[in-house]
Amino acid sequence: MNRDALPTIDDIRAAAARIALFAQVTPVLRSDVLDALTGARLHFKCENLQRGGAFKFRGACNAVWALDDDQAARGVLTHSSGNHGNALALAAATRGIAAHVVIPEGAVRAKVEAIERAGATVHRCAPTQAAREVMAAQLQRETGAVFVHPYADVLVMAGQGTLALELLHQAPGIDALMTPVGGGGLATGVAIAAHALDPTLVLFGAEPAGADDAARSLALGSRVTTVVPDTLCDGLRALVGERNLEALRAHRVEVITVSDEETVAAMQLLWRELKVLVEVSSATVLAAVLKRPERFAGRRVGVVLTGGNVDLAALPW
Amino acid sequence: MNRDALPTIDDIRAAAARIALFAQVTPVLRSDVLDALTGARLHFKCENLQRGGAFKFRGACNAVWALDDDQAARGVLTHSSGNHGNALALAAATRGIAAHVVIPEGAVRAKVEAIERAGATVHRCAPTQAAREVMAAQLQRETGAVFVHPYADVLVMAGQGTLALELLHQAPGIDALMTPVGGGGLATGVAIAAHALDPTLVLFGAEPAGADDAARSLALGSRVTTVVPDTLCDGLRALVGERNLEALRAHRVEVITVSDEETVAAMQLLWRELKVLVEVSSATVLAAVLKRPERFAGRRVGVVLTGGNVDLAALPW
Repeated sequence: MNRDALPTIDDIRAAAARIALFAQVTPVLRSDVLDALTGARLHFKCENLQRGGAFKFRGACNAVWALDDDQAARGVLTHSSGNHGNALALAAATRGIAAHVVIPEGAVRAKVEAIERAGATVHRCAPTQAAREVMAAQLQRETGAVFVHPYADVLVMAGQGTLALELLHQAPGIDALMTPVGGGGLATGVAIAAHALDPTLVLFGAEPAGADDAARSLALGSRVTTVVPDTLCDGLRALVGERNLEALRAHRVEVITVSDEETVAAMQLLWRELKVLVEVSSATVLAAVLKRPERFAGRRVGVVLTGGNVDLAALPW
Repeated sequence: MNRDALPTIDDIRAAAARIALFAQVTPVLRSDVLDALTGARLHFKCENLQRGGAFKFRGACNAVWALDDDQAARGVLTHSSGNHGNALALAAATRGIAAHVVIPEGAVRAKVEAIERAGATVHRCAPTQAAREVMAAQLQRETGAVFVHPYADVLVMAGQGTLALELLHQAPGIDALMTPVGGGGLATGVAIAAHALDPTLVLFGAEPAGADDAARSLALGSRVTTVVPDTLCDGLRALVGERNLEALRAHRVEVITVSDEETVAAMQLLWRELKVLVEVSSATVLAAVLKRPERFAGRRVGVVLTGGNVDLAALPW
């Protein structure tokens, strides 16, 4: 299997079948107040209530259960101090296989503890991208574990795409969809699934102005890799992947950028009106609707709340 | 209509029909980690995601829509600085009628603001029960508004009972149900609805040790009114109503008391494992399961998370 390819709708349907026993069917919430504020009819897909508190479990679970028995026996491996590391640890536990997570020094303790609680082995490295990759490569040689990339892996993208199948079933009649854009694994899976079901769906991405490489890359027509992320949205600091960018372009995803101030205000509004407390990265979608109401007025919009792993002791306001 | 009577299952079904257009069908969440911790299979009914952030909207909405047009024209009235006041304000707005909410000085500002945002008229009074009642009576004389009691009103109890109809539909096969017990409106409605559908269901209540009047009243066989509430659980400080107590006894509701420490730990656990942030009062149910695991082991238990109106700036840890 070519792990670098883009998934097809068949890959996404296969993923849905693979993860059905383990993933939550997350609820879709609505709010008359937020509809009145935005002029759109918003359907919030609450992946913050997914296992592990983020949509990442879908992709990780698909990657784990797609392994053949020989591969599975050697375990899985990733480098991530965030939701993907936790998701892979939880997914590995559902199959009873080893998970190795390379985590840079300085990562949030609560996240490291969650990964350890899930039964994964945590490997500490220096807080640089190079150190992560060196340690991951070394572990891969030593253990033979399968490396699962957080967003550029075909099985991961297919798993994330299952969310769109689920949402379109739960809220039929949606005519637009929006996800945050970081590395682009979610946006890619969702775009492929959504357009397979309904080619007329209009797709949007939300990106922090301080990590707007996807917006710039789409505007320029080629991948911009010089952006140095400067945003509170820790889940959206990754550069969009090459294949992911290709998919965003092919599916005409319109990326809207929002400031951190707008995002934090949207996070507070989501808490006040929906009583869901989401990660700051997740609030970019509501911030984008509020920023560009003319793009959404009168539409029925599915918006993905991606994660809920908030540190209550360090709220961004 | 005798507003002091207990509701029947027909009243509860009528309530379900009345509120269907306005109330959210709240999700039911599960957690393998919490199941493993408790030895039970827990189904969390997330009324924290109900409109207004609490189950109270069900009862208030039923009370508002059961009014005939003449009554409705005069509006509704209650005294509450908490979720019932907010729920009644929101319910009145769905019918476009006036709501008057008597609120004692010193009430949490965020709650008062929410009530005002919903369009209700807030009337301030001194922070005593007597002052509340005097002002409510005066307003009733002046406006002719219908008084809607937070838990002793038959329409309110019927509205709260709709939650059990919904939960038993969403999670068939449940063999036990638990709610927190304050005034007892929720526990009463749920008991009547649940036993009408399945007389073999085992019913539990959770009560703070510092406001254990229902537990004491059931043990003693008569209503104890001497308890002076001393608990963080602000939603559960009311004395259980007379009719409510009668219903708890008739339906053999077993009330388990828990300390505030146990409840706060359960609140943290709910946040960590389910990513739902609930009011401290709501966490009593998980605290009760953890305290008396032998009562729940092997059971499929529906537990009601009653509200999510948490002040993020004043978490109880």
